Amino acid sequence: MAPLDDQIAFLLEADRLKTVLRQSTLTDRSRRENSAEHSWHLALMALVLAEYAPPGLDLQRVLAMLVLHDLVEIDAGDLFAYAPAGELARQQRAERAAADRLFALLPPGQSERFRGLWDEFEERVSQEAKFARAMDRLQPMLINMVTGGGTWLAHGVTADQVLTRVALIAGGSPALGTFARDMISRAVTQGLLTPGPGGS
Amino acid sequence: MAPLDDQIAFLLEADRLKTVLRQSTLTDRSRRENSAEHSWHLALMALVLAEYAPPGLDLQRVLAMLVLHDLVEIDAGDLFAYAPAGELARQQRAERAAADRLFALLPPGQSERFRGLWDEFEERVSQEAKFARAMDRLQPMLINMVTGGGTWLAHGVTADQVLTRVALIAGGSPALGTFARDMISRAVTQGLLTPGPGGS
Repeated sequence: MAPLDDQIAFLLEADRLKTVLRQSTLTDRSRRENSAEHSWHLALMALVLAEYAPPGLDLQRVLAMLVLHDLVEIDAGDLFAYAPAGELARQQRAERAAADRLFALLPPGQSERFRGLWDEFEERVSQEAKFARAMDRLQPMLINMVTGGGTWLAHGVTADQVLTRVALIAGGSPALGTFARDMISRAVTQGLLTPGPGGS
Repeated sequence: MAPLDDQIAFLLEADRLKTVLRQSTLTDRSRRENSAEHSWHLALMALVLAEYAPPGLDLQRVLAMLVLHDLVEIDAGDLFAYAPAGELARQQRAERAAADRLFALLPPGQSERFRGLWDEFEERVSQEAKFARAMDRLQPMLINMVTGGGTWLAHGVTADQVLTRVALIAGGSPALGTFARDMISRAVTQGLLTPGPGGS
């Protein structure tokens, strides 16, 4: 097959991400969000919030990581961010196996480049990966704020747990970290989030 | 309000694009596609197919246009690409009014920049806009090929009509134009598309 045929096959396989459901709902609460539209929302956030990233950020690489990062859920499914550690480790192995399979559908060269972007996102070392992951952490918090607590109340998540995620947002963007921390305080005050065992 | 509050309000308003339904279905035909996940699919296509664009393409601008271009459908809805000319003109006016409203939610400066990207996509003069629009034309053809004719058969679209779209794909990428033309020939052979009054 010509490289283009392989690329088209990959793009048609990618369509399946639209059927992977997340725990979050849409802001109108009409249904659960899927991972493809979620990925679009994160790319839009990166475009809109780029000014809060450290100077010199390569926004194109951030966008590429956000568009690609959830594809592995086609095989591995989506796991709730606050799942127990054992489940998270199992999910990580499943996602790595999915990345092996999916990116290998692409022509040589491109396959390795895309896998590299996926690994970069997972390793969260580069400032681009940290900023991309900050989008991925912030988006469900915004949804929870406007859906009366959303997955926080549905799954009994506490402010202590959410604040560990806020630290990851701050690692990608100090300004967005501050914004998220203030938002979590408001969520506790409004009863959208329980303070947690630490009472924070 | 601080600029960041306006930007967050814009991002939450954007969530509504997930509720705008297109005529196309998913490849598994389980339901209609929405415009948010469609936008994600186009951004993924641009990443994967960038090598078929003219040299020197600014891929970041292509990605930004693709992520932003359908937001106007929050107010204007999606119109089938082969709708009558009168409906298309009405849709264009509705989309322009939607662009006026939506991008004005953003802080000054960013508002104008995003509106500029949306206008650039609509005007299809720059090579970035032409390549972005080629993705938007090619994606539903790919879906139709793997869903037994999809919207072509459902709406009685003919090969003559589709070939006018193929010309727009060729304008963004000659190689993808050739690919699309060959695909349309196969679609006619396979009975997924009727030749049309011209008999082409």
